[in-house]
Amino acid sequence: MTEVEARSATSRLHDQLEAIVEVLRRHDDEGPLPAGSQAELRRQLDELHPADIAFILESLPLDDRLAVWQLVKADRDGEILLEVSDAVRESLIADMDRQEILAAVEPLDADELADLVEDLPTAMLPELMASLDTQQRQQVQSALSYGDDQVGALMDFEMVTIREDVSLEVVLRYLRRWDELPAQTDKLFVINHDNLLTGVLPLHWLLVNPPEKMVSAVMAPDVNTFHPTDDAYDVAQAFERYDLVTAPVVDESGHLIGRITIDAMVDVIREESESEALSRGGLREEEDIFASVWASLKNRWAWLAINLVTAFIASRVIGLFEGSIERLVALAALMPIVAGIGGNSGNQTITMIVRALALNQITTESAKRLWRKELTVSLLNGLVWGGVIGVVAWLLYDSASLGLVMTAAMTLNLLLAAFAGVGIPVLMTKFGRDPALGSSVLITAMTDSGGFFIFLGLATIFLM
Amino acid sequence: MTEVEARSATSRLHDQLEAIVEVLRRHDDEGPLPAGSQAELRRQLDELHPADIAFILESLPLDDRLAVWQLVKADRDGEILLEVSDAVRESLIADMDRQEILAAVEPLDADELADLVEDLPTAMLPELMASLDTQQRQQVQSALSYGDDQVGALMDFEMVTIREDVSLEVVLRYLRRWDELPAQTDKLFVINHDNLLTGVLPLHWLLVNPPEKMVSAVMAPDVNTFHPTDDAYDVAQAFERYDLVTAPVVDESGHLIGRITIDAMVDVIREESESEALSRGGLREEEDIFASVWASLKNRWAWLAINLVTAFIASRVIGLFEGSIERLVALAALMPIVAGIGGNSGNQTITMIVRALALNQITTESAKRLWRKELTVSLLNGLVWGGVIGVVAWLLYDSASLGLVMTAAMTLNLLLAAFAGVGIPVLMTKFGRDPALGSSVLITAMTDSGGFFIFLGLATIFLM
Repeated sequence: MTEVEARSATSRLHDQLEAIVEVLRRHDDEGPLPAGSQAELRRQLDELHPADIAFILESLPLDDRLAVWQLVKADRDGEILLEVSDAVRESLIADMDRQEILAAVEPLDADELADLVEDLPTAMLPELMASLDTQQRQQVQSALSYGDDQVGALMDFEMVTIREDVSLEVVLRYLRRWDELPAQTDKLFVINHDNLLTGVLPLHWLLVNPPEKMVSAVMAPDVNTFHPTDDAYDVAQAFERYDLVTAPVVDESGHLIGRITIDAMVDVIREESESEALSRGGLREEEDIFASVWASLKNRWAWLAINLVTAFIASRVIGLFEGSIERLVALAALMPIVAGIGGNSGNQTITMIVRALALNQITTESAKRLWRKELTVSLLNGLVWGGVIGVVAWLLYDSASLGLVMTAAMTLNLLLAAFAGVGIPVLMTKFGRDPALGSSVLITAMTDSGGFFIFLGLATIFLM
Repeated sequence: MTEVEARSATSRLHDQLEAIVEVLRRHDDEGPLPAGSQAELRRQLDELHPADIAFILESLPLDDRLAVWQLVKADRDGEILLEVSDAVRESLIADMDRQEILAAVEPLDADELADLVEDLPTAMLPELMASLDTQQRQQVQSALSYGDDQVGALMDFEMVTIREDVSLEVVLRYLRRWDELPAQTDKLFVINHDNLLTGVLPLHWLLVNPPEKMVSAVMAPDVNTFHPTDDAYDVAQAFERYDLVTAPVVDESGHLIGRITIDAMVDVIREESESEALSRGGLREEEDIFASVWASLKNRWAWLAINLVTAFIASRVIGLFEGSIERLVALAALMPIVAGIGGNSGNQTITMIVRALALNQITTESAKRLWRKELTVSLLNGLVWGGVIGVVAWLLYDSASLGLVMTAAMTLNLLLAAFAGVGIPVLMTKFGRDPALGSSVLITAMTDSGGFFIFLGLATIFLM
């Protein structure tokens, strides 16, 4: 075993990225790379896995990225386009001409093609579809007929199917006629003459059972079967729960139409959590870190504008009480504390609830308990921390009644935060919306305006 | 094919949860379940996959959860404990006596045992370790010697190893002697007489190649080999990139010591994204939604306290300018807008950067470009939105100079937000800390105090 092979695979990728950046950096800025460097880069790239090239392209700023992209062998373009994030994919496709795009997609399977189609120039689609054979075209059209978040858009059509009335020996001989089994095949699908799925035969069982046994005697009825209209994230969770590697997809009457593989499901899990993290603050998921300033602005403006409106409302709430603030300027200094703690606490609650909702763990029954629990936690937090800050305010401004108002306002605002922290995501879900979307902006808006109103209102009533 | 089998596996679980809740609800509150209901629940539970029982336990409030837990067959307890989240696991173990715990862990493998050990009562460990055979004990100790985030803690020891100087026929015959192959086996590990890993033989290749071929002629040198000290998340990303199902773990000199499977890596990916989402707002990951009020308070207090300090600082910043606010009370109403928009924009930036850092996509080289880009985006956002709100302030308070101060303050605070949004996570990473930890609280603290200072400072200079 050589030195290199004993090295861990995790450190390899970063070294490769560094090596490529080094070559790119050797001749600073401007102008195309000299032929020598181009050849060197090309050699490095040829040795890399498509997913690694994708990683490197994503890690490079746009100009370097396109320089590297030009050096990738044309017949690998398709696989690489499949691996990069949407934003980077757009930037690469924008750099390719018609001929290059057609060459890139040529080696792809129907499901992969369907994945890329939406990012290709619309004008090219007729030409592209015409270049496919009938079966492929049907498969692409089928995949395109489902939403991005449905299993039908993610399934592939490469499966090994067998009949149940043959012996394992026959199956083994049949498999030897394949050059290669479809990637990640861990089970064979058993179908009858009507193409109805009657069971699955894990490769393991094929290997440990005596060859003279019949498939029907060894196969398992497959309980983990999915429909093309199933929600992809639900299916991904099933893969996670049951440790699946592949699973059959059947239509309403049980006909086998495709299969789902773990690698597609891992992507779904990753994308779901990423888009959840991003959408919380009102970011769309498609921004890559080297996106142009313009793309970044577009990505962020919508929620900044919403935030501007909510901040303006909070400002007008304060405006209502300008008279009180003029008479007791300490209110201006204390009010952000009430609003800030409320926002922090509300965000903690909403994060917990959004997560539980994503995992389908909240029933009508349990929702009531959750309100009760969150409200109790907030009440205690409000009394304790509100009490602390009330004492500080008392000492600082030498007014016990100001301290009391502070404590009361903190407690009430924390209760509001808990109420909204559970209520917003539960309502969003009820109306079929993504509960994470902008949740942070919304809860902060409520606790800001609410906090100012509660605090300044109480102060006006009791201190003026 | 029956009706039931053609149903999708995703809808099954929710129905099962509902059915169990229904039985639990039939006799409201208080008192143990009648024997009839117990028998019914037991029957339902017996049919469920351990992961499904885990899901159901997680979805039930504590009292219901323990009622159901008591009805689960003792020999399944171990598998189920492995599947539930840490917080729920604690609640279940707290409900078990010594005898039950020993019975539950008895059927587990070394790596599974190592996973549970830290949640078991410390007093039980000597007894538990004594009950293992020498090899198992060594494996458990080995697994415990690595950090939770290292591959060594997650690898298992169930592998099929073969020699390279035999024919595929021999391998096939050897496999038939197994009752069952280790779960998720997709490749056999080829070792020499020194236990050095010399290659891997995917089951696919075993199946499609003629049986008379030698292992050495068919096997692949395995490039995706990991070390027990590798970071689990890095390895999970490699699994994702290369679509791996299993991979060998070797020591420094290339001896095969274990293997890693995709199901463990999916858990790592899920946990990493969850803990990222939670830690952003300063939550630890161990809170389950039905945690007691006390557990929730403990989980949330640390960051609420930090937030209290930062809010207090912001309040003192305002206190510095009480004189100005007294003279121009409009400042009090406008200042939260400057702080709020800064916080929102800073959170957008920090979310992007934390994500890119988690994927290792930021090099020293690219960090500079990122600052530049984020600062440009902020400058434009500041001028545009700051301009808008400046005009609004001008019209509202009939003071052009107040509008100008507002615009300038917004722009400067957005630049501060961009600067801190890139700087905080990059610095955290440099010092080896988790860049997501409390990032939202920290950035908000900076944009609050900073925003108040900038706005009130400018107002004091130019308007007083």
